[in-house]
Amino acid sequence: MASNRYNTLSPSIIRQLEQIVGEGFVIYDPDKLQQYSHDEIPDPHYAHMPEAVVRPRTAREISEIMKLANRERIPITPRGAGSGLSGGAVPIYGGIVLLCDRMNKIIEIDRENMMITVEPGVITNEINEKLSGTGLFYAGYPMSVETCFIGGNVAENAGGGKAVKYGVTGRYVTGLELVTPTGKIITLGGKVLKDVCGYNLISLLVGSEGTLGIFTKITLKLLPAPKASADLLCLFKTTRQAISIVPKIMTSTGITPTAIEFMDRQAVEASCNYLNETIPHADAQAMLLITIDGADEQAVQRDYEIVGKACMEAGAIEVFVADNPTTSQRVWRIRQNIGEAYNLISHDQSNEDIVVPISAIPEFIAAMESIAQKYDVLIPTYGHAGDGNIHARIVKKPDCPQEKWRETLPKLLEELYRLVAWLGGKISGEHGIGHKRKKYLPMVLDQNAIELMRAIKRAWDPNNILNPGKIFDL
Amino acid sequence: MASNRYNTLSPSIIRQLEQIVGEGFVIYDPDKLQQYSHDEIPDPHYAHMPEAVVRPRTAREISEIMKLANRERIPITPRGAGSGLSGGAVPIYGGIVLLCDRMNKIIEIDRENMMITVEPGVITNEINEKLSGTGLFYAGYPMSVETCFIGGNVAENAGGGKAVKYGVTGRYVTGLELVTPTGKIITLGGKVLKDVCGYNLISLLVGSEGTLGIFTKITLKLLPAPKASADLLCLFKTTRQAISIVPKIMTSTGITPTAIEFMDRQAVEASCNYLNETIPHADAQAMLLITIDGADEQAVQRDYEIVGKACMEAGAIEVFVADNPTTSQRVWRIRQNIGEAYNLISHDQSNEDIVVPISAIPEFIAAMESIAQKYDVLIPTYGHAGDGNIHARIVKKPDCPQEKWRETLPKLLEELYRLVAWLGGKISGEHGIGHKRKKYLPMVLDQNAIELMRAIKRAWDPNNILNPGKIFDL
Repeated sequence: MASNRYNTLSPSIIRQLEQIVGEGFVIYDPDKLQQYSHDEIPDPHYAHMPEAVVRPRTAREISEIMKLANRERIPITPRGAGSGLSGGAVPIYGGIVLLCDRMNKIIEIDRENMMITVEPGVITNEINEKLSGTGLFYAGYPMSVETCFIGGNVAENAGGGKAVKYGVTGRYVTGLELVTPTGKIITLGGKVLKDVCGYNLISLLVGSEGTLGIFTKITLKLLPAPKASADLLCLFKTTRQAISIVPKIMTSTGITPTAIEFMDRQAVEASCNYLNETIPHADAQAMLLITIDGADEQAVQRDYEIVGKACMEAGAIEVFVADNPTTSQRVWRIRQNIGEAYNLISHDQSNEDIVVPISAIPEFIAAMESIAQKYDVLIPTYGHAGDGNIHARIVKKPDCPQEKWRETLPKLLEELYRLVAWLGGKISGEHGIGHKRKKYLPMVLDQNAIELMRAIKRAWDPNNILNPGKIFDL
Repeated sequence: MASNRYNTLSPSIIRQLEQIVGEGFVIYDPDKLQQYSHDEIPDPHYAHMPEAVVRPRTAREISEIMKLANRERIPITPRGAGSGLSGGAVPIYGGIVLLCDRMNKIIEIDRENMMITVEPGVITNEINEKLSGTGLFYAGYPMSVETCFIGGNVAENAGGGKAVKYGVTGRYVTGLELVTPTGKIITLGGKVLKDVCGYNLISLLVGSEGTLGIFTKITLKLLPAPKASADLLCLFKTTRQAISIVPKIMTSTGITPTAIEFMDRQAVEASCNYLNETIPHADAQAMLLITIDGADEQAVQRDYEIVGKACMEAGAIEVFVADNPTTSQRVWRIRQNIGEAYNLISHDQSNEDIVVPISAIPEFIAAMESIAQKYDVLIPTYGHAGDGNIHARIVKKPDCPQEKWRETLPKLLEELYRLVAWLGGKISGEHGIGHKRKKYLPMVLDQNAIELMRAIKRAWDPNNILNPGKIFDL
C-alpha cells in the first residue's frame, strides 16, 4: 500500500507531541534524526529517515501519542536499542519513531514467585546483573545481550545462544502491559505460570515486530540459576561429522546442553585472525562449541565428560574443555567476534538467519558452499546448530565491484531461500522479517496463513498506524 | 448472540454430509447422540444435544464440512475424546459435532529431528508408548493422559503433572495443519525449533478451544527421555509450611523438579479411603508429591537427597522416597484418584482450575477453607503447586438439598473468582473457559483484551460457525 495514505508532521503536531512527552523529548532536528534511520543491517539501502523521534516515559504518554497518530494519520515506528537485523525499527514511511530508551526501570524482582517485571528499555544484560546473588536468572541470551533492549527481544522473540536448553524469549513472558495500535492500555497475564483464559494474546504479541502493540511493562519468569557451567570446543574433520552428532548428543546421552554452536572453518579462521588467536588442528573443517550447565560442578563435570566422550566416538579430532570463566570467555569470544571479523573484510554483507530441521544442516551447508562458489562471494556459516538456526553471512569479496554485488545479491538470496523452503526450513529463526525479508515471506509461508495474519493486523490497527510495512503489506 | 442466526439440519444437509464422509460416518439417530451432548463436567446443566455427529477422516473432508456449514449457517463443534472440563466440546447451539476419533494415525516419528507428527485423534498416552525404546519422549502429561486426544490437548493447551519442569502443551507444538473456520486448509511451522516468520499463529491456535481452527496434523518436539526418576512424598503440619517450600526448593537447590503436586488432608484422606490405603501421620495437614527425573539413577538420587533435605529443613514431618516404579505408582494413585473418591460422595460438583502466583497459594487455600465453611460445602484442594495451579473441587455435602446447592454454587463461584482476581490469579490454568466459565472471564481479563480476541474471531470466522459461544459471545 502506498505511503501517501499518511500525512507528514506539521509544526502543530510537533507541539502536541511536546505537550505529551515534554519539550526536551521530541527530536526533529534533521542532523540528530539520522541515527534513527537504520538498525544494524549493514546495507544503507534499508534505511529511511523519520520526521521526528519521541521519547515517552509512560504508557499513558504512549497511549496519547497513538491516539494523536490515529487522528492525524501519522505512522509510528517503535524502537528499542536499534540492534535489530531486519529493519523492524526503521520508519519506512517516515513519521514518528517512538523510542523506548527512557522506559528503562526494573520495576520489581519477586523472588518468591521467581518473576521480574521490567520496562521495555532495560538492557537485557542488566536483568541478570540485577539478579546476581538471588539464585535466579533470566534465560534469554541474544548475542547482542549487552546492548539490546528487553522490549526489542520480546517484539522479535529473540533467540540466541542458550535456546537449545532454555528456548526463546517467548517462553519466559508471563505478563505484558501494552498500548494497542489505537491507543488503549491493556494488561495481559501476570505472575501466573499457566493461563488459558482466552486466546494467548501474549504469544501473538511476542514476535509481532512492533506491529500489534507497544510493550510498556514486561513480566518475565526466572529460573534457578545454574551454579556451574563448562564449555567444550570440539573439532571435526567435516561439517557432516560435526552436525550429525547434534541430535545424537541429546538422544544417546539424555543430556540437553545449554548451547550447541556451530562454526565452519572460514568463520573460525576469520575470527581468530581478528582476535590474534591461533586455531588448533589445521585439518579441522568444523567446530562445535557446546555449553553444559547444571546444579553444581560435579554434575556439570559428569555431563561434559559424557558429551565429550560421545563427540570423540562420533569422530571428533579433539575436544577441549573450558571449565573456568576465563577459558570459557576466550572460546566464546571466537564465536561472538565472527561478525566484527567480517566487517574488516567488507561492509557489503547480508546477514541471513536461516532455520532448517537439524537433520538438514549438512545438506544446507554443503549447498551454501556451492552457492558461494557460483556467485563468487564469501559465505561463512555459523550459529545455533542445536536449534538448526544457522547464520549465513554473505560477504562481498573485496575485489568485487559494487554494481556486480548489487546485481548478484537478490539472485543469490532467492536461490538461498528457495533451498531453505525446499529443506522444510524458514528464512528467519530469530532476527525477524521486518522489511528486509518481507517480499520473501510467501516462499516459506502459506498464502492463506499470511491472509490470517493480515486479518488480525487490520482488525487491531484499522488505520495501519503502528509500524506499517513490516512483515507484510496490507 | 442468539442461536436463531443458525439453521437446523435438513435431510438434504445430512445427505451432503454423508457424501463428504461416507454413509456410515454420520450419526443422527437421537439415541446415539446423547453421549456427544456433554464432556466430563459432572453437572448435566452444561449439556446440549447435537443434531448430528460427523466423523471425517481427512483434512479435505473437514474443509468440505466447514464450507457446507458456512453456506448453510450450521454451527460446528469439534470434539476429541470428550474428556474436557469446561464444556468446550458441547454443541450449545446444536448443529454438528465434528468428531476427530477416526483421525488417529501416528504419521511419523523422526528420530533425527526429535519430532513426531500425529493426527488429532491419537490418545496422548499412545505417543509415549510408540516412542518407547527410542530414547525420546513427549513431555505433555495431562492427568487424563490415558483417555484424552492430543488434538484436544493442543486445543486446550493442556497442562498437567509435569509442567513445572517441562511446561505445557504449547511449548512442544512446532507444526500444525488445520482447517480454518471458512474451510481453508493451511500449514504452519514445521520441523523447525525457531521460527519468527510472521505472527505466531501456532501459539494463538494452541488453547483457542476449537474456535479458530480444526487441527488435522500436529508436529510435536520431543525431548531426550529421562533415564531415571523418583518421587518424594513430603508431609507437613500446615499448608503454609508445605507451600512456602515450593519456590525455595527451586531457588535454594537450583533443581527444577518435574512435578510438585499439592494435596490437602481431606483430599488425601478421601483418596486413601477410596483406595484402601493408609495415611501416615495423623497430624499431617498437607502433602507435597515431588517428582525428580534425570539422566541416570545417580543424578536423580543426588537431586532427591538435596530436595528431601530442603523439605526436612523447612519443617516437613517426614519425607518418603519412592525410587522404584511400583512405589511411585502407588503414591501417584493417591493423587490421581481424588476425583473418583469424591464422585462417591456426590456427583454434584464444580471442578475449579484456579491459578495464582505461587506466593499466594497459602492465602488462597486458607480462604477456600473459610468459603467451604461459609457455604457449607466440601472443598478439597490439590493440584500442581509448582505452577500455582490448584484444583478446588467444590462438592455438595450429601445432606444438602439440590435446590440449596443450585442456589449456593453461583454465589460461591463468584466469591471464589473475585478472590482469585484479587490475588492476581486466573480462573483457569489448564481446563479452559469453554461455556462453563464464559460469564466470569471479564473478572480476570481486561475488557479491551476480550475485544481484541473478539476481533480475531470475527475476522477469521465471519459467520461464527466454528464452536460458537465458547470463551466469549460475539
